[in-house]
Amino acid sequence: MNGKFIVIEGLEGAGKSTAIASIVSHLQAKGIRAETVREPGGTPMAEALRDLVKKQWQEQVSAMTELLLMYASRVQLVDNVIKPALDKGRWVIGDRHDLSSQAYQGGGRQLGSEKLQQLKQLTLGEFKPDLTLYLDIDAEAGLERAKGRGELDRIEQEDLAFFERTRARYQQLVAADPSIVAIDASQPMQQVHKDILRAIEEKLFV
Amino acid sequence: MNGKFIVIEGLEGAGKSTAIASIVSHLQAKGIRAETVREPGGTPMAEALRDLVKKQWQEQVSAMTELLLMYASRVQLVDNVIKPALDKGRWVIGDRHDLSSQAYQGGGRQLGSEKLQQLKQLTLGEFKPDLTLYLDIDAEAGLERAKGRGELDRIEQEDLAFFERTRARYQQLVAADPSIVAIDASQPMQQVHKDILRAIEEKLFV
Repeated sequence: MNGKFIVIEGLEGAGKSTAIASIVSHLQAKGIRAETVREPGGTPMAEALRDLVKKQWQEQVSAMTELLLMYASRVQLVDNVIKPALDKGRWVIGDRHDLSSQAYQGGGRQLGSEKLQQLKQLTLGEFKPDLTLYLDIDAEAGLERAKGRGELDRIEQEDLAFFERTRARYQQLVAADPSIVAIDASQPMQQVHKDILRAIEEKLFV
Repeated sequence: MNGKFIVIEGLEGAGKSTAIASIVSHLQAKGIRAETVREPGGTPMAEALRDLVKKQWQEQVSAMTELLLMYASRVQLVDNVIKPALDKGRWVIGDRHDLSSQAYQGGGRQLGSEKLQQLKQLTLGEFKPDLTLYLDIDAEAGLERAKGRGELDRIEQEDLAFFERTRARYQQLVAADPSIVAIDASQPMQQVHKDILRAIEEKLFV
């Protein structure tokens, strides 16, 4: 039997890392060992691309360049890590996946949803997560939390309007796709985790 | 008046570098100063991508990853160097451009022409060179010359069949597009350069 691919999505500071830790231990208690991966990154080449796309350059980074690098990293991770793991029956938890590009580059960078859909189809075909959990948080509140963690990278340094466009696109995409579960990440952490684990139970174990 | 964008294409060892030097001095004699650029590369970020796509990795590099990195580098170069130069009336001579991806990743890596056309349209839109010169050489002869220049990179280390597929795709694309001029690069160098300069005169100065 194939493994399952669960993806956690959301703005900086939405609480993705602790959500992933909570899911991993929940699955472990059920006897399921899950691998965790992050995007961009997750293979040696994809991690090199992560550094490259997040660092500051002495030149403007085109929105399309940024988008292509996100997909280059994603294809490398899907082909070399995620698909082989799923084929062996292992579960994979992803910190971001395709929805991030749709929201950040499509919405935040305003590349539009049509180009994003075309690129997704061209590079990933029909591959998609078994379950995506979107942690919804106010852009300003999320940024405040992210700032508390240390220095911001090139993308995290964008202005508030960028993250507001990103959140609006996330919300649009989530509303249009019943396979994505939205979680209110402004709730107390215990409630957030409760909602996450309930979604996992309902969507993957019933 | 806008500058012109001339691209030199062909397999490893076809003689692109000396052809470019010959074009630059021909234009200079006419009072035209031309910038030269190479792909992948040509901006700090694109050069970093060049290193990354050409080096050996401890993992398989997906054909699609390679293709996306070529386009990421290309968009960065077009947006930050080529278009601004053309807008200022400067001429640009490119060592490879889009046709290389069509031939190497489309033909050599067998990603097919439909995906390649879609990605080209998605990333470059209607932007194209004013003139492309394709230096046609037998794959084996070209590889022999390239080997004489030193160590081969990850792509240059492919087997002969890869370069034969790449050459076949080049020839198909050139036959289908009257704006590309094919030059027989197996001729004595003096004749090759004569053919190149005649094509430039006929296509850009009449």
